[in-house]
Amino acid sequence: MFGTCFGNVRTTVPLVHNITNYVTVNDVANVLLACGASPIMSDEPRDVADITAICGGLNINIGTLNERTIEGMFTAGKKANELGHPILLDPVGAGASALRTDTAIRLMEELELTVIRGNISEIKTLACGSGTTKGVDADMADAVTEENLSEALTFVKSFGKKSGCIVAVTGAIDLVSDGEACYVIRNGRPQMGKITGTGCQLSGMMTAFVAANPENRLEAAAAAVCAMGLAGEIGWSRMEEGDGNSTYRNRIIDAVYHMDAEVLEKGARYEVR
Amino acid sequence: MFGTCFGNVRTTVPLVHNITNYVTVNDVANVLLACGASPIMSDEPRDVADITAICGGLNINIGTLNERTIEGMFTAGKKANELGHPILLDPVGAGASALRTDTAIRLMEELELTVIRGNISEIKTLACGSGTTKGVDADMADAVTEENLSEALTFVKSFGKKSGCIVAVTGAIDLVSDGEACYVIRNGRPQMGKITGTGCQLSGMMTAFVAANPENRLEAAAAAVCAMGLAGEIGWSRMEEGDGNSTYRNRIIDAVYHMDAEVLEKGARYEVR
Amino acid sequence: MFGTCFGNVRTTVPLVHNITNYVTVNDVANVLLACGASPIMSDEPRDVADITAICGGLNINIGTLNERTIEGMFTAGKKANELGHPILLDPVGAGASALRTDTAIRLMEELELTVIRGNISEIKTLACGSGTTKGVDADMADAVTEENLSEALTFVKSFGKKSGCIVAVTGAIDLVSDGEACYVIRNGRPQMGKITGTGCQLSGMMTAFVAANPENRLEAAAAAVCAMGLAGEIGWSRMEEGDGNSTYRNRIIDAVYHMDAEVLEKGARYEVR
Repeated sequence: MFGTCFGNVRTTVPLVHNITNYVTVNDVANVLLACGASPIMSDEPRDVADITAICGGLNINIGTLNERTIEGMFTAGKKANELGHPILLDPVGAGASALRTDTAIRLMEELELTVIRGNISEIKTLACGSGTTKGVDADMADAVTEENLSEALTFVKSFGKKSGCIVAVTGAIDLVSDGEACYVIRNGRPQMGKITGTGCQLSGMMTAFVAANPENRLEAAAAAVCAMGLAGEIGWSRMEEGDGNSTYRNRIIDAVYHMDAEVLEKGARYEVR
Repeated sequence: MFGTCFGNVRTTVPLVHNITNYVTVNDVANVLLACGASPIMSDEPRDVADITAICGGLNINIGTLNERTIEGMFTAGKKANELGHPILLDPVGAGASALRTDTAIRLMEELELTVIRGNISEIKTLACGSGTTKGVDADMADAVTEENLSEALTFVKSFGKKSGCIVAVTGAIDLVSDGEACYVIRNGRPQMGKITGTGCQLSGMMTAFVAANPENRLEAAAAAVCAMGLAGEIGWSRMEEGDGNSTYRNRIIDAVYHMDAEVLEKGARYEVR
Repeated sequence: MFGTCFGNVRTTVPLVHNITNYVTVNDVANVLLACGASPIMSDEPRDVADITAICGGLNINIGTLNERTIEGMFTAGKKANELGHPILLDPVGAGASALRTDTAIRLMEELELTVIRGNISEIKTLACGSGTTKGVDADMADAVTEENLSEALTFVKSFGKKSGCIVAVTGAIDLVSDGEACYVIRNGRPQMGKITGTGCQLSGMMTAFVAANPENRLEAAAAAVCAMGLAGEIGWSRMEEGDGNSTYRNRIIDAVYHMDAEVLEKGARYEVR
């Protein structure tokens, strides 16, 4: 199934409209190309409706948001909704500032989102207005672990149901749920957290996967998580002595570039709960 | 001749002012340094005139344009025209949105451009207001091939003549014409299309080449195309098993860094028609 | 001492708020992660006060400044001052445009800065309103050399005293002074100048070092300079035939990733004058 989802990205080459932060945008573009999709970036309110109209999906990432790009997010989102395109929201730093929290919540309220993907702290902020955000990385105390897994499952499913979105909480253990089923994914490596933007990259790829698999969005979102995590494992296996986070970044994107349906099927480590 | 053009970049170290998208800007800066030029980025209307005044050439790339940066493009362009500096326009995504198409056309009308560099779809949009743009990558049906080459030559020469600019259409086969002669260039590798921003990088480098060769702008523009394509070939020859588009990006810039006049002369594959 | 300063970064994981240019921002984020700190980027006036409040230090870099981000710099800076957080100013391109010069000077006047880090030309601009800036790279004639070292020392100490800041002038020889003592640092390699943003990366890291060592800010700033230069040396030693500036960039960040207190202590080359 995950292999098929990935194959559909490679064969349909979805064009993904990204309104995303300027920190990690280059890696988002390269990982989208690596997985077989095609990226376009545009955040100007007067530009975004035209751009999103020619795309297959919209990836909204609120890192380095500003008043102009926030307006762009709503304009693009409304157009995408009109056209029935899937929208992914990556609420980078929700909980870290009032503007980020409010913007993420307003995007949830005013747009029909398909997927929300973030770390546990960001997702908790959206779910309950609480959660402690230490910058853009998940607070350690909140991390999903084997110990608190069943509690986390209940939380993610409940937020999926309440929001009507696929909710993807990523961390050491990743959870992807539509409110009913929940994929529990154990791909990836902790060293990925030492690279800026692996989460942003995943959001880009997930938008492509969901756009290319309109009939199986939950599976597609989960497949993207597995693909990114597996790329982290493959990339890590190619690290040489002295290589660090900058080289690891390249190796992960390279691994996505070479991944195919079979590799993903074989390497995906998940259960459905 | 191409070797001399490149040599002039290394000896005169032209400072290039770039108003360019935030997706690929880092690679543009690094490739400019790699080829021996010096980059500076500035897009604020209140900043650009001063910056462009100390530079030797201006590279305007409309990817991720916004209202403020559009104003910056015109302000910088007028100053560059006043000072006789060459201006290159890279109409990223012209045809994909009204704002991009209109901005590119207005830049052509209100500024005296030296070079316009884009893919066939973008250039067709500027030439005829038509052309189908699929995002920022050239539409396959429109690609310049050996089959439609003579038709494409006629088109590029005619647009060169009409616009009064050097026109560079890049793709599998690259065409660079001033309306009279046309360089037909066959350097490069198809895998370069899987890296975000090789076109943007070429625009930066081409601005440097043109700035460093005021007496031979057509040759300089063509030399930059050959240099980028050749770097793609050299970079590819250094790829190892498992390397993908992210590593390829590094290897291409590295190849520019090590290229010299002799390597370029020897590796350039072109004819003049 | 330098080892201890570095160790404190790794153990306290300071969160650094960066208002920085979009050219080199990704490398700044990755080098901050590499040295053990945690980066967050935000430049929107309505966002920056909240963000800086949860951080331990503020890095203001004026490359690609615009009217909105300038406002963000002042808003963030005032909040950081209120909270007693250290602020570093990197006056990229001061002297190259009136807007950059004026903004840097106003930031000095209206904020209580902890560190100012730039090349000699930028620092001279701030000190005397003179200095010739050739883009964002230091003018050769102005470079600190063994020949003009004692003159440069006098200048840096005097500007340190006058400004009340730690002043770090980086180049072939680096000088870091609080107006009394001056660290003269000889780590690094000339090829680092062929990579865009090694200065910006250093500013990010220096902010982290200063934030993590409130009692020893001068030593911490000097330690960051040594760490970056030493990473340039270690990264260079790992270069293979054909590697150029793009690969070198990765190897430097990788070297920071693997550096520890002992390596830094052993490799730091400096004297105090």
